[in-house]
Amino acid sequence: MQFNYHIPTRILFGPGKLAELSTEKLPGKKALIVITGGKSMKANGYLERVVELLKKNDVQSVVFDKIMPNPILRHVMEGAELARKEQCDFVIGLGGGSSIDSAKSIAVMAKNEGDYWDYIGGGTGKGKPVTGGVLPIVAITTTAGTGTEADPWTVITHEERNEKIGFGIPETFPVLSIVDPELMLTVPPKLTAYQGFDAFFHAAEGVIAKIATPVSDIYALKSIELINTYLPTAVANGQDIDARTNVALANTLSGFVESTSSCTSEHSLEHALSAYYPELPHGAGLIILSEAYFSFFAEKVPDRLVMMAKAMGKSTDGVEESKQPYLFVEALVELQEKCGVRNLKLSDYGIKKEDIPKFAKNAFETMGFLFTLDRYKLSMDDVITIFTKAYK
Amino acid sequence: MQFNYHIPTRILFGPGKLAELSTEKLPGKKALIVITGGKSMKANGYLERVVELLKKNDVQSVVFDKIMPNPILRHVMEGAELARKEQCDFVIGLGGGSSIDSAKSIAVMAKNEGDYWDYIGGGTGKGKPVTGGVLPIVAITTTAGTGTEADPWTVITHEERNEKIGFGIPETFPVLSIVDPELMLTVPPKLTAYQGFDAFFHAAEGVIAKIATPVSDIYALKSIELINTYLPTAVANGQDIDARTNVALANTLSGFVESTSSCTSEHSLEHALSAYYPELPHGAGLIILSEAYFSFFAEKVPDRLVMMAKAMGKSTDGVEESKQPYLFVEALVELQEKCGVRNLKLSDYGIKKEDIPKFAKNAFETMGFLFTLDRYKLSMDDVITIFTKAYK
Repeated sequence: MQFNYHIPTRILFGPGKLAELSTEKLPGKKALIVITGGKSMKANGYLERVVELLKKNDVQSVVFDKIMPNPILRHVMEGAELARKEQCDFVIGLGGGSSIDSAKSIAVMAKNEGDYWDYIGGGTGKGKPVTGGVLPIVAITTTAGTGTEADPWTVITHEERNEKIGFGIPETFPVLSIVDPELMLTVPPKLTAYQGFDAFFHAAEGVIAKIATPVSDIYALKSIELINTYLPTAVANGQDIDARTNVALANTLSGFVESTSSCTSEHSLEHALSAYYPELPHGAGLIILSEAYFSFFAEKVPDRLVMMAKAMGKSTDGVEESKQPYLFVEALVELQEKCGVRNLKLSDYGIKKEDIPKFAKNAFETMGFLFTLDRYKLSMDDVITIFTKAYK
Repeated sequence: MQFNYHIPTRILFGPGKLAELSTEKLPGKKALIVITGGKSMKANGYLERVVELLKKNDVQSVVFDKIMPNPILRHVMEGAELARKEQCDFVIGLGGGSSIDSAKSIAVMAKNEGDYWDYIGGGTGKGKPVTGGVLPIVAITTTAGTGTEADPWTVITHEERNEKIGFGIPETFPVLSIVDPELMLTVPPKLTAYQGFDAFFHAAEGVIAKIATPVSDIYALKSIELINTYLPTAVANGQDIDARTNVALANTLSGFVESTSSCTSEHSLEHALSAYYPELPHGAGLIILSEAYFSFFAEKVPDRLVMMAKAMGKSTDGVEESKQPYLFVEALVELQEKCGVRNLKLSDYGIKKEDIPKFAKNAFETMGFLFTLDRYKLSMDDVITIFTKAYK
């Protein structure tokens, strides 16, 4: 049992916590606020509130509002350019994973030369070390899905090359994250489900990853338990602050899992899909793949799946040993039904069955690293099998 | 559900991890190494090894070797003076809680004027803010008891005033902690038990403290489970690296509890005893108080004790509800028996029954703050009752 542990982010968690932005010690005097091009941050008044709270805290701000749901390289470069021009000394990601991930990547490029893809380790990235430092990052999350407020990771897509790749260094941990479930009350049911399942899979993959530790396990199993208990309510009644709070906590715990264990190849498979079909929400892609993916691993890592089945309230009493890991798949399918996401289909997003070999190749080429963290080494054929089983 | 979360320490955990001291990025070029006046760090070769590993990492060092088991103010001031004189740019605590806590306090006083007690919040301390910064702290722990490698706290005794008081600010979190259970193989059985129970009570008090959060609970319950499972083996067979590793992990988790919840008044009561009787090991004092203390709280916070009883493997099936919290006390007593510490007596340390009112007064005066974190507000009479029940 050997591991390193490092989650330096200060987290303010709970309903109403956003108010503390006006008094909390912040890492600079002028912030670049990164939000998506959608209207929710403005329509819900979140952006205005954040700008006001920053003013009270004697901090100026500039807004960069172009980020797309699957954030792209070009916007990272544009945002970094704006941060330099405006002499911002820190970056705030306000929104979901797209905004916060972009804020992280912008914080890197605001202080380093060249192209962001120069620093990326997978695909056609050049894997150069980051030597120029990184602007301090503050995350204010309005969704419960990526856990990015509690991990160093950022996922950006290189549109022209269909590469959707993760990146993270100790400096891309947010220095401060505010997780205020009151900001999540307006997330629509479908997105609540997609995001909640994204958090779920960060936990579940973290359990089956071979670098899991006893510490990542306790985060992951608690996250799985909370999502199983509270996500259906959060989907059914978005105004239920208790359900929202518990799902938000699960999501932050899943971020801890990302920081202490890792995603596995399920994420590589999904990134391959959404690299070509950016309209496919990441969480939806994971949901569609999950039954086939975890069924494949049921016989490879039975103990791990049994642990997760128990966290979801399944009892192994009287169940034949060889069938016990499938209790997790059963619980997963039940949770998908309860959240109304059982009928998602790849074909609904225009994804063609004959392209499966292309996705499998992309998964290995752009996110090959995650395959090395699986406890069972998947072959190209295995990946094609999983994609094919998941295809509807 | 509202809480703040911040544990910035980077932790290298596991057998053999000390070796990484030679390659890990360190926060300076000249370290003050703080160890106790006992012979174990030298006799076991730990000090020599640390000095060598630092040299390989291009770091010079100076040794301060006067710390006592219950560390005292005077040595904090002496150590800080040496750090200034030698122009050390960081401080390493090598050993158990005494050395690491002292390293933290020395790191404060190396950069701040006046007397350490000027900055202390309880007793006759003046509660001045620390404005001069703090030297970076590295913790290398050779025991599993205080969790100080994973929290900001340091406990120092003002000998002349019989005040044993905790102190901590964000800057007193170690920047780096190395938890290498191989360094714990030589801890004698009795100390292993005392220290293990100290960690146990950090977790158990963290569960009943009113500032407990869902995150501190998962750390605490896991720590309690691990100590219950592995401490008897670590006491019986000190060379069992698996047991040592699991107890070390429990201890680090208990440090996380200290960072996310808090000790309760049990620690105030114990500090009062060991402030007057420094020969009483802190863990032994807690063991002696614990049955009376937790029995008192059984009816005040039954749910919390039931949670802990379950973490210790007790089943509530068929147990009358009013008796369920006492399952925790039962498990606690059984664990004490298994670890050979059931027969500890205050009278064996020369502590007199008639001094109980003096200890009760000291507990409120020097560590009154912890009483405010109890879920039930203890009166002076309650404290005297607990001391009296615990007295043998």
